[in-house]
Amino acid sequence: MKVELQRVAPADIEARSMEIIQSELGERSFPAEVLPVVKRVIHTTADFDYADHLVFSEGAVQRGVEAIRQGCTIVTDTQMARSGINKRVLERFGGEVLCFMSDVDVANEAKERGVTRATVSMERAARLKGPLILALGNAPTALVRACELMEAGELRPALVIGVPVGFVNVVESKELLLTEQVPYIVARGRKGGSNVAACICNAMLYLASGNARE
Amino acid sequence: MKVELQRVAPADIEARSMEIIQSELGERSFPAEVLPVVKRVIHTTADFDYADHLVFSEGAVQRGVEAIRQGCTIVTDTQMARSGINKRVLERFGGEVLCFMSDVDVANEAKERGVTRATVSMERAARLKGPLILALGNAPTALVRACELMEAGELRPALVIGVPVGFVNVVESKELLLTEQVPYIVARGRKGGSNVAACICNAMLYLASGNARE
Repeated sequence: MKVELQRVAPADIEARSMEIIQSELGERSFPAEVLPVVKRVIHTTADFDYADHLVFSEGAVQRGVEAIRQGCTIVTDTQMARSGINKRVLERFGGEVLCFMSDVDVANEAKERGVTRATVSMERAARLKGPLILALGNAPTALVRACELMEAGELRPALVIGVPVGFVNVVESKELLLTEQVPYIVARGRKGGSNVAACICNAMLYLASGNARE
Repeated sequence: MKVELQRVAPADIEARSMEIIQSELGERSFPAEVLPVVKRVIHTTADFDYADHLVFSEGAVQRGVEAIRQGCTIVTDTQMARSGINKRVLERFGGEVLCFMSDVDVANEAKERGVTRATVSMERAARLKGPLILALGNAPTALVRACELMEAGELRPALVIGVPVGFVNVVESKELLLTEQVPYIVARGRKGGSNVAACICNAMLYLASGNARE
């Protein structure tokens, strides 16, 4: 072996990572409620920019945790985000993750109307019953449509995770969400992603189940 | 609507994003072969750090494209990376994506041996026939084990995408890969991820099929 590796047992890797993150956050202080979310996003991305860019509405994490405990549906805007969410923990609370992006009828309707599949997906989400978390890590068009539906009183999520990534209307869609009367967790600026959306959900799932990590 | 949005048709969003990325890369020049990969990683992450951190062995992208055209198997170290790879394009070439991380026998063997599932997954990958791309965006233990197997002559991938993310042995595992006699694409440093691993595969899939994007 031409490179020196640290000896850390598999079960200890995540705890050691979290110690390093806490140490590098230094003197910065975060409300106790949001700290596990901030740390897990940095754990997922190795990007400390999120310590500056993550914005939480008052009590947002607690609202997400409550929704999970009530067996909420999480709707994502990519299959990748859906794949990254810990479904074993979510299902223990009776919840599930849905993503409408690959549905043939969603694709067809989007094409006919000249809108994105993400737009149509949010309209599907608005028809669901029960507590709902939107976890949007990709499509600003999903986030914009969600805001429109909320303004029209047709969509009432328990929490919106608004972390699309990219260059066209991404910043704008997140600024729009910040104006809405809804619990939100937002990564301001261009950065975000399906991995970020999924890991924010997982941070709340571990809080809901009383374990740092499962 | 309280925020001004750019009017961009759904089909034009990606092209517009790529124009912005190209523009912000400014005078920086990249070999023609690697530019589509660099741009797609920035498109996926909105993180221009990757322009500095991505390292390609000579001809690595071409080796990946050739393997795809030969109907290679892509092995990932997360279900999330597997989920993010464009399987429609890959299957057109006769290829498939596999991830062994959720296999019960992999989990059992890892537990018995006191190693990570990612370690055992690479041993499974080494048994596969035909051209192979390893797309590792999460587990440094996968990358380290892959390097050991290559050094032992038991694993001969066409290309290793080494982009694990994190804080424990991540930097070291990538530096190790840089010492191996194998085509590689590496994101040096702590950053990377399942999304990065998947999008590097997708960049090569689009090159293989002669389309900027499908």
